[in-house]
Amino acid sequence: MSLSEFSIIEEFFTLTSDAGLCPVVGVGDDCAIVDVPADKQLAISTDTLVEGVHFLPNSDPELLGGKVLAVNLSDLAAMGATPAWASLAITLPSVNKTWLSRFSKGFFGLAKQHSLQLIGGDTTRGPLSITVNIMGLLPKHRRLTRSGANIGDGIYLSGSIGNAGLGLKKAISGSVDAHDIDLLSYLKPSPRIELGQVLLGMASSCIDISDGLSADLNHILKASGVGATIWHEKTPFSHSVKQYMQELGDEVWPYSTGDDYELCFTIPETVGEEMLEELRPYQVSKIGVIESQSGLRIKMNGREVVTLNKGFDHFHVR
Amino acid sequence: MSLSEFSIIEEFFTLTSDAGLCPVVGVGDDCAIVDVPADKQLAISTDTLVEGVHFLPNSDPELLGGKVLAVNLSDLAAMGATPAWASLAITLPSVNKTWLSRFSKGFFGLAKQHSLQLIGGDTTRGPLSITVNIMGLLPKHRRLTRSGANIGDGIYLSGSIGNAGLGLKKAISGSVDAHDIDLLSYLKPSPRIELGQVLLGMASSCIDISDGLSADLNHILKASGVGATIWHEKTPFSHSVKQYMQELGDEVWPYSTGDDYELCFTIPETVGEEMLEELRPYQVSKIGVIESQSGLRIKMNGREVVTLNKGFDHFHVR
Repeated sequence: MSLSEFSIIEEFFTLTSDAGLCPVVGVGDDCAIVDVPADKQLAISTDTLVEGVHFLPNSDPELLGGKVLAVNLSDLAAMGATPAWASLAITLPSVNKTWLSRFSKGFFGLAKQHSLQLIGGDTTRGPLSITVNIMGLLPKHRRLTRSGANIGDGIYLSGSIGNAGLGLKKAISGSVDAHDIDLLSYLKPSPRIELGQVLLGMASSCIDISDGLSADLNHILKASGVGATIWHEKTPFSHSVKQYMQELGDEVWPYSTGDDYELCFTIPETVGEEMLEELRPYQVSKIGVIESQSGLRIKMNGREVVTLNKGFDHFHVR
Repeated sequence: MSLSEFSIIEEFFTLTSDAGLCPVVGVGDDCAIVDVPADKQLAISTDTLVEGVHFLPNSDPELLGGKVLAVNLSDLAAMGATPAWASLAITLPSVNKTWLSRFSKGFFGLAKQHSLQLIGGDTTRGPLSITVNIMGLLPKHRRLTRSGANIGDGIYLSGSIGNAGLGLKKAISGSVDAHDIDLLSYLKPSPRIELGQVLLGMASSCIDISDGLSADLNHILKASGVGATIWHEKTPFSHSVKQYMQELGDEVWPYSTGDDYELCFTIPETVGEEMLEELRPYQVSKIGVIESQSGLRIKMNGREVVTLNKGFDHFHVR
């Protein structure tokens, strides 16, 4: 069945939730209009997912609808922002009501969890790709950025790395085990929104791991004009990832796999134990230290391995 | 030559202009951060252009860079908003420095005219398409929408219609005449930002003509719960469009061609001549009237022709 652009928006993407900050004008006019509270500033991010590049052809639409939003929410998490509004631009080869209904279910399912309102977007015909523009709120004059890391700061990581990279390999090989943690990491990442908000008063810098820990931590190092050492033994890997590293004979593999959507951040030495206690609910590990010598070094068994700066780069790696 | 995503952003899309409202954090972090002035609200719109659907394959990148922004600026114009910030998500099959440099030139050329700042975006690999998310400012509690038209209001149009539709036909047939007004209308539309700002205190409803006058005016009629009659003899057509309508033997053709990016708006009868004088610089024509009877009627030589509701619809027409 073929639908027009206007009825696609009406049927699948008109917001019905009352949660969150309602726009003054929502979906259905030339622009949406929102009121930003006077004591807040606006954080904005845009991410595109393209079929065959960022997700596998014929991906499950419900998981995809959630993932495209999760990827964008993760950018808000990395700034310490609270989700408020999003626009969804979706390009699809033809109109498939079942696909749209399931995509919309996945998108709004996650949106509701974060009281995020869909305020607009565009639907166009073409090869499948999805762009989300997300907006969040921050208290005035406060933010997490990539540029505040200082020598001596501890480097921290939420969760573990490599799971989504391994999940991608499992997805390619046809696995659909709904309980596999690697597959879930890849297909259904959890943006660390709450953790980002806690870090707002504590961390000196923060980034989300979309392109691999080494690539993303290198962004912090470059923006902050510093270097770092990571202690491999302190970096958390799941049992499955450890096993895969052994099979591969490559212990640095998980440092350059993308899609984990964990947060990597730095905390000054001056931050006391009491404040660090606030991180306890979030599965956070201290994995290294910021240093004056530029570059990112990984120490393994007391031995230093070469500087890592590889990660997922849309024009290089795939 | 191949470039990484990070260097594409640095080389081609890092803002250097001082005009407009500088973001607190611009291109290069997980999010941009902006301060919305306390007496303003934010108008937001998103539009995607896909190669082969919204623009011809191998389009001139400089013209394309301008057009993708113009299309989005036009949505701000339709709300009466003043351009402030934009994000650019660009998906391209491979990295071509010449193409990127020219695209960027076209984009920033128009951005500077409107003191618009590029604050972020994404570059991804895939079939060529471009999504712009644009943000503008409106005085609090003021806006132009589609839903305010009332019975008796005059219907007005800026410029003329059909030129971009004819320009598309000329472009397809290979014309590259840089002085042809139809080709220019199609390739280099002028968003009616200033006019939108003037209308903010005057018009009861407004929309930009992206999908054809009949389709877009029908959005106003539906949102406002009214109908309308258009007087064909009062609707402005260029000499070239008139000639094409004659050749075609179809006098309603220009009502359903897209891409004109003019404004169609309604003004209450109570608005006096003195206020209407403010429209003089903008080539505005009164072309019809809002009525209680639903539907959009075109009157030609005193005779009523059938209701028009066709326009450019991405999933139907092309």
